Amino acid sequence: MKHRPHQRHKQHGNKGPARGSDKNSDRQDYKPSEPRGPKASLYGFHAVREAWLNPQRVPDTLYVTEVSIKGFETTIQEAKSKGLKRPQPVIVDKNRFDNLVPKGAVHQHLALACSGLEEIFVTDMIIRASNKSNCVLVMLDQVTDPHNVGAIMRSASAFGADGMIMQKKHAPELDGVLAKAACGAVEHMPVAYETNLSRAIEELKEGGFFVYGLSEHSKKTVRDLKPGGKVVLVLGSEGDGMRRLIAENCDEVVKLPTQGAIQSLNVSNAAAVALYALSPNTPKK
Amino acid sequence: MKHRPHQRHKQHGNKGPARGSDKNSDRQDYKPSEPRGPKASLYGFHAVREAWLNPQRVPDTLYVTEVSIKGFETTIQEAKSKGLKRPQPVIVDKNRFDNLVPKGAVHQHLALACSGLEEIFVTDMIIRASNKSNCVLVMLDQVTDPHNVGAIMRSASAFGADGMIMQKKHAPELDGVLAKAACGAVEHMPVAYETNLSRAIEELKEGGFFVYGLSEHSKKTVRDLKPGGKVVLVLGSEGDGMRRLIAENCDEVVKLPTQGAIQSLNVSNAAAVALYALSPNTPKK
Repeated sequence: MKHRPHQRHKQHGNKGPARGSDKNSDRQDYKPSEPRGPKASLYGFHAVREAWLNPQRVPDTLYVTEVSIKGFETTIQEAKSKGLKRPQPVIVDKNRFDNLVPKGAVHQHLALACSGLEEIFVTDMIIRASNKSNCVLVMLDQVTDPHNVGAIMRSASAFGADGMIMQKKHAPELDGVLAKAACGAVEHMPVAYETNLSRAIEELKEGGFFVYGLSEHSKKTVRDLKPGGKVVLVLGSEGDGMRRLIAENCDEVVKLPTQGAIQSLNVSNAAAVALYALSPNTPKK
Repeated sequence: MKHRPHQRHKQHGNKGPARGSDKNSDRQDYKPSEPRGPKASLYGFHAVREAWLNPQRVPDTLYVTEVSIKGFETTIQEAKSKGLKRPQPVIVDKNRFDNLVPKGAVHQHLALACSGLEEIFVTDMIIRASNKSNCVLVMLDQVTDPHNVGAIMRSASAFGADGMIMQKKHAPELDGVLAKAACGAVEHMPVAYETNLSRAIEELKEGGFFVYGLSEHSKKTVRDLKPGGKVVLVLGSEGDGMRRLIAENCDEVVKLPTQGAIQSLNVSNAAAVALYALSPNTPKK
């Protein structure tokens, strides 16, 4: 098992300030006006709430409206009672809110500019799993749609998966649309962006993981999956599925037990079903 | 069991010409230019392909590019061999294609203007199920996002569901984004738009259906579901879930066996898991 140096200074998402910057103490709580300050990388209630409560995050600016802040007050209190250092919210006129976020963003009048998350590697995931008997990791081979990846992250979190692995060059960032679709799961799901997924699979196998691929081209179905142990679930892109080399590297390929004219599911729906099939009958906690 | 008059002349989706209009015979196959003719209500390969092959549909205009038509030739041949009357494709300059479809549509340079689908009612679904021992229907209580509804339809079709029921006033149309997300399932899934879902549930119960609702507020999980028989699966909107009256009308409410900080799934992911749990171990065909 190779141990690559852990580049702990790297962060997922690059929209926030450098860690340790302390703009918070002298922040002014200014009234509805033209929004100022950094662009928000996170928006939507759940995405912002979970980031606000994540001790790993260094929030720079929380944008709210006079109405939306009311729904966020419990979260602000929760962060305070946890002893988290958080800036004063900045109240923005609701008609100006769209300027703070990417076009078309469904922001619910809550947006956050903050530091990214720590980057981890497959090696770290293997180490973390070393004293566990059960561990489920999800690997996405070039699934690029941030809605889908976000929904997969949400399902992975809900079904108790321990991490996700994506290919560095063909994966969305952990913010914006993805974070909104993940509904806060971004804060709870360790993610490794790896350059070479075939090599990551090899490393995971050496680390004791059994690798399942999901594909229509198989006789075995997810009903044959046995929950428990250390497993990786690999899903490919919607159009082409897993790349050939990735599929060949899997220990076993399984399909969904579908029928009729429409045999394939949306990739996030497929992931949810496979994760359910892999999840233990009794949840961990 | 009430038998309402079947308003067979009504159609889902109103973007196409009246059934029986015969513009096809004198159509000109015109060369790349400014697109003319009716706006396309369907776009994307699978949505257009399945509609093209659906004998119920009366296509008015198929828009393609000189490149995209190549990928569609097999489908054109397939329709011919089925004896379906189909117009000549209209080749459009690829830079003009965006004008044919709603803004932001992912069209893959294939778009179709055509008649809508026949509208059916819950009463019809009950009649159709009368000589069956197994039947699964999916009811959506005010799920409005067309991406989600389309993905649910795709999963419902893949897991062998027999129909979907939505509330007339709070449901998207069966075209555009929904049809694209459904990946062709729109052509295979009977859909009833009902005014009053509580009354529809009553009617389904009288018709021998057992009604499961999906909600976080339950002790039983989808693992307790027994495939087989006539069942309705009811899902509510993402924010609020099923409305109170709808939930109270269900015979039983079940939840997903989730855990941890993020307990809820995207509604289409949740639907996929429940449909999988309800689907028989051996597919119908």
